[in-house]
Amino acid sequence: MQKRILTGDRPTGPLHLGHYVGSLQNRVKLQDEYDTYVLIADVQALTDNFEHPEMLAGNVLQVALDYLAVGLNPEKVKFVVQSMVPELAELTIYFMNLVTVATLERNPTVKEEIKQRNFVKGVPVGFWSYPISQAADITIFKAELVPVGEDQLPMIEQAREIVRRFNRLYGKVLIEPRPMLGAMARLPGTDGGAKMSKSLGNCIYLGDPPEAVRKRVMSMFTDPTRIHPTDPGHVEGNPVFTYHEVFNPNREEVEELKERYRKGTVGDVEVKQRLYDALNAFLTPIRERRAEYQNRSKQVYEIIAEGTRKGRALAQATMGEVREAMKIAYKFA
Amino acid sequence: MQKRILTGDRPTGPLHLGHYVGSLQNRVKLQDEYDTYVLIADVQALTDNFEHPEMLAGNVLQVALDYLAVGLNPEKVKFVVQSMVPELAELTIYFMNLVTVATLERNPTVKEEIKQRNFVKGVPVGFWSYPISQAADITIFKAELVPVGEDQLPMIEQAREIVRRFNRLYGKVLIEPRPMLGAMARLPGTDGGAKMSKSLGNCIYLGDPPEAVRKRVMSMFTDPTRIHPTDPGHVEGNPVFTYHEVFNPNREEVEELKERYRKGTVGDVEVKQRLYDALNAFLTPIRERRAEYQNRSKQVYEIIAEGTRKGRALAQATMGEVREAMKIAYKFA
Repeated sequence: MQKRILTGDRPTGPLHLGHYVGSLQNRVKLQDEYDTYVLIADVQALTDNFEHPEMLAGNVLQVALDYLAVGLNPEKVKFVVQSMVPELAELTIYFMNLVTVATLERNPTVKEEIKQRNFVKGVPVGFWSYPISQAADITIFKAELVPVGEDQLPMIEQAREIVRRFNRLYGKVLIEPRPMLGAMARLPGTDGGAKMSKSLGNCIYLGDPPEAVRKRVMSMFTDPTRIHPTDPGHVEGNPVFTYHEVFNPNREEVEELKERYRKGTVGDVEVKQRLYDALNAFLTPIRERRAEYQNRSKQVYEIIAEGTRKGRALAQATMGEVREAMKIAYKFA
Repeated sequence: MQKRILTGDRPTGPLHLGHYVGSLQNRVKLQDEYDTYVLIADVQALTDNFEHPEMLAGNVLQVALDYLAVGLNPEKVKFVVQSMVPELAELTIYFMNLVTVATLERNPTVKEEIKQRNFVKGVPVGFWSYPISQAADITIFKAELVPVGEDQLPMIEQAREIVRRFNRLYGKVLIEPRPMLGAMARLPGTDGGAKMSKSLGNCIYLGDPPEAVRKRVMSMFTDPTRIHPTDPGHVEGNPVFTYHEVFNPNREEVEELKERYRKGTVGDVEVKQRLYDALNAFLTPIRERRAEYQNRSKQVYEIIAEGTRKGRALAQATMGEVREAMKIAYKFA
């Protein structure tokens, strides 16, 4: 039997090239070999967007369109909307008894994420405790593997601890998930920042029209030490070349551009123009599939509904076992 | 229309005279005037009994028997088993976004309760955050009034804050509950301690057989300064007389005993014997009704199931409104 994977995204906006490089391309590769559940994590998105829940409904569709556009096959991959699986909330509540306040406070990932956000009115309990609900997300579907980056390892370790404690107290019901490391690359933003982020306006979205892509590419940060096209330039740490490496399949062209750039015999404009051509060639089929699905959004909703139904059935089965193990599966109702 | 009340008990054991004096007698009085929901709070009981969930199933029945024995009328009062209303977990998760970590840490009731418990391995997140789930308990049933003691006022205030924040952010869906103060008296334990508590072994249970009641009464703490029956004794702060005041309807007898006790003309044994008689007269009809229901436990389970069905229907309706207000009531499923 295929091993099961859980991954997911928060539906706070359409997905961009950073998502593609970091996880989507990997999911497309894994979908044949693994039983894949992709959580559209609206409940988690609420933990730091609870003041703007109205953005979620539209973005559930946007994210699903992106999944289909990059080639996730809904015959294989289940798209599951988190809020439509209320069993996740139930399991989270029971997990909350198995984690101490002190343990949560030590979680380095949460510490870092809290730092990144500007919680003017204080840290919401829901955000602070999200490693617990994430453990419920993983274990309710009995996922064995979770593709993550290094920075997410403490989250998986927290989930493993909860599972061990649960199984020791109540009986062996849940599966201890393992991280699937190494697959997560990171693409810098068009501003050269560490990563693409909607709030920084440094993203190229999978559905962006050619004009938007061109504009974003032509205004990309390059080598800040280079003033004239005839100055020798740096290729390392130069986001334009990082993108060439990732998206330009013409290796010869890339090598030639790098050499000329180092010598000062090519201008930024030409390098960017070539990058735009490569990116556009990469994005065109994605954009077209995305537009096709967008025209058939009823069908896309049906795909989401079907994935969610399957995910919920699995979650209900697990919660049945959980209640039995905890001896609270009362028989009188 | 009748105003709605929410009350409840944690099913960690059968109920005792302390529960009767503190809440049950009040509920019986209120049931004609108010639409009463009584939560059998097994999920909350798990927050500090998660290592022994096996005790809950049996005690759900015990608590329901106590309710019926003291005269709660299942035609009027709904007995609702908390874990069978998973919508409570859902609402709790959404409420967790509306409370900050700092606010919870300041809650004086939680601080006090944590002090009372000996959490060897640290404070579980579920226990620490129970004001949030309690707010969900109250508001999901749209209760307007919650009978509480002074010490529980911070819990109601927390619930009111959550409701105000929810209604301001998402629209006016929830009702701000009000405390119903003053009805909660407190009965000391048979050892003279501040209250009856299972773990202290100082309780008289509503279902105790006469012999158990007699034993507990005859070993009650009295006036520690009194050595001989001929010594003048103290009536104030003497639990035997406190119980006489509460349970002996023969006011003349009580006054006479107090006078003789103060003068040193009556022994502890006689005072206790008279208390036993009064208590037994009080407990006999309760005990008999309890035994009758116990013989028809199938019917009692049906009563619990029916109350829980009604409670759940109400909770589902509220959660439907909550999801609509939060704009996460997706239409495609």
